[in-house]
Amino acid sequence: MTTTAKPGGLEGVIAGETSICRVDQTSLLYRGYEIADLAENATFEEVAYLLLEGEKPTENQLATFKTQLVSERMIHPDITAWLKTAVPALKEKRAVPMDVLRTAVSMVGHADPRCQAIDAESNLRKAIRLTAKIPTIIGQMQRFLDGHDAVEPETGGDPTLSHAANLLFQMTGEKPGAEAEKVMDVSLILYAEHDFNASTFTSRVIAGTLSDMHGAVCGAIAALKGPLHGGANEAAMDMLAEIRRDIGPENDEAKITEWMHRAFAEKRKLMGFGHRVYKNGDHRAGILHELGKKAAATRGHEFNRLFELGEIVQKIMLEEKNIHPNVDFPCGMTYFTLGIPVPQYTPIFVASRVTGWCAHIMEQHANNRLIRPRADYAGPALRSWNES
Amino acid sequence: MTTTAKPGGLEGVIAGETSICRVDQTSLLYRGYEIADLAENATFEEVAYLLLEGEKPTENQLATFKTQLVSERMIHPDITAWLKTAVPALKEKRAVPMDVLRTAVSMVGHADPRCQAIDAESNLRKAIRLTAKIPTIIGQMQRFLDGHDAVEPETGGDPTLSHAANLLFQMTGEKPGAEAEKVMDVSLILYAEHDFNASTFTSRVIAGTLSDMHGAVCGAIAALKGPLHGGANEAAMDMLAEIRRDIGPENDEAKITEWMHRAFAEKRKLMGFGHRVYKNGDHRAGILHELGKKAAATRGHEFNRLFELGEIVQKIMLEEKNIHPNVDFPCGMTYFTLGIPVPQYTPIFVASRVTGWCAHIMEQHANNRLIRPRADYAGPALRSWNES
Repeated sequence: MTTTAKPGGLEGVIAGETSICRVDQTSLLYRGYEIADLAENATFEEVAYLLLEGEKPTENQLATFKTQLVSERMIHPDITAWLKTAVPALKEKRAVPMDVLRTAVSMVGHADPRCQAIDAESNLRKAIRLTAKIPTIIGQMQRFLDGHDAVEPETGGDPTLSHAANLLFQMTGEKPGAEAEKVMDVSLILYAEHDFNASTFTSRVIAGTLSDMHGAVCGAIAALKGPLHGGANEAAMDMLAEIRRDIGPENDEAKITEWMHRAFAEKRKLMGFGHRVYKNGDHRAGILHELGKKAAATRGHEFNRLFELGEIVQKIMLEEKNIHPNVDFPCGMTYFTLGIPVPQYTPIFVASRVTGWCAHIMEQHANNRLIRPRADYAGPALRSWNES
Repeated sequence: MTTTAKPGGLEGVIAGETSICRVDQTSLLYRGYEIADLAENATFEEVAYLLLEGEKPTENQLATFKTQLVSERMIHPDITAWLKTAVPALKEKRAVPMDVLRTAVSMVGHADPRCQAIDAESNLRKAIRLTAKIPTIIGQMQRFLDGHDAVEPETGGDPTLSHAANLLFQMTGEKPGAEAEKVMDVSLILYAEHDFNASTFTSRVIAGTLSDMHGAVCGAIAALKGPLHGGANEAAMDMLAEIRRDIGPENDEAKITEWMHRAFAEKRKLMGFGHRVYKNGDHRAGILHELGKKAAATRGHEFNRLFELGEIVQKIMLEEKNIHPNVDFPCGMTYFTLGIPVPQYTPIFVASRVTGWCAHIMEQHANNRLIRPRADYAGPALRSWNES
């Protein structure tokens, strides 16, 4: 009756079926479209529609979808007020932005007119609403942290801006140039979906009890935070900053090699490298690296040097450990180039992946079976309370 | 390389090892102690210590543990203030208490002095802190909903009361009698732990990314809410109330049978019955049923009739469907007898199960492996964005 999954962590175990995404060694498909095709030819809004609805939108469908997204960007004034009260915890490093985002998304549920409903129509409405509001939460949080007011809180930013541009606008108060918008848009496409990764799987386990979408997304945010998952983009950038501090301003390859050898000797886990599924490299990493490097080239020496440093680190990892970078490695360098504070890298990942989570929650609810595995018991044998 | 899990939902799949709990057809052990032994001979505080520390406490260890629990009952005034603002959402049924509890627990993290730490010592400290504060959140929420002030918010209730009695005190403003305290205490023991159930598994998937305990508990709360999991105790009581409304004040067995046959014909899922693991009955159900029934006998006719109704429903389910009640079925009737509002049944389940969750989060962190299964792809074949 039972199947033992070795080597643990459900590695290689098929936990269910999905029509949303195919991940294998040679390709990554969202609903049948290759990730490089989407990165080159689609926008994030189109990809979000594709994931949630299952098909590429027609022109009319896309226009309606964008209107819905824009109309849902505003967050409840109570949530804005609460975000202001969270600033001390962020400043004192008790909380990180991922924690505050988890609480705020939980609150978004309380303001939903039909939070408890899990039918397909309600779920789709909530998915659009969450996708629209998360960038506003991130943007307002960062503005308050920087000591500024929220950017156009009545509308959640500028209704004429794309999802990617409006996210940057709400964080910085400045409308981004076309290139920054494009880089952000592609990064959101690359991060949107990845089958049964730990956060998506979390959202499906929660949805499998027939619990609601907001709760499932809160759980997924908690899972994505971890440094072995979404938190890796922050950790990768932190590592590069640490190397820079240690080796000085120039990219001396001997010094970098020495730094890496020390890290290997200390059995330190280097973030942004390796992947549970991809053993020969992550399809998304190269796409984002090229784009981020192009953006860096326009920003001056500091950013060029960062990508150069990243390339040397990658080369050493590949030559000495045969481990490829995953998408989080170029993402860290790319978001740094865009001027985004490091602790907001994983929240931005949420702003993208929420579309994949919601698609999976809807898929789980539509054909549900409780996800409830068994455990091997390795504890004490039967004993008696009064006699022990 | 891959193992296909049939019939889905990871049924019968071993997802990992645990020393905390053994669930099988003939017994339920917490760290080697049988559940009936614990229900008869231990208190909830002792069981919480056992789950978190791995061993039965000595007298001194128990005294220290109780002191720690009592000293951590107070919640931050900001959380109390926010709970007041959540009353309209609860009254308008946009939010249910499980949603508000999820948000409040998320906030508890922001006030934790070392929220980001996941070492064993920090985790144990947080586990005690969460176990102490959750009854205060539930109690204050209910008091505000009832239009009253919080009960002794500076201390989180009465420091001289046990965990179970103080939970009831904070919800109702009245110190419970010995019998109500005992029933609540035993229900907390029965609900504390159950290996890789959906909410605990959620907490382990989250912890497996090396994310923190507060986030993992938020995700677990979201999972427990579902009617296929913890929400079943509320759903079971709602069903009994519905039968009562439909059949009138007396327990006419013919009318009850007719009601059940109609439910069967409508393929309605009857909550509080059946279990993914237990096929011949849930060890906990009988223990709680007897205790709840005894309490009902002292409360008068209305409560006796409720248990009588429950017994007739159980008999019909067993005779006609061969399905046994699970612990959620007597729990609904028992909490009703204690005068607890139905939407707080699952939050009280949280007040107990948080100990099991925290024990599992600590076990996961201590010997971590990312939990990341694979999916079978059933979506469209490769297609081109520009050509479709």
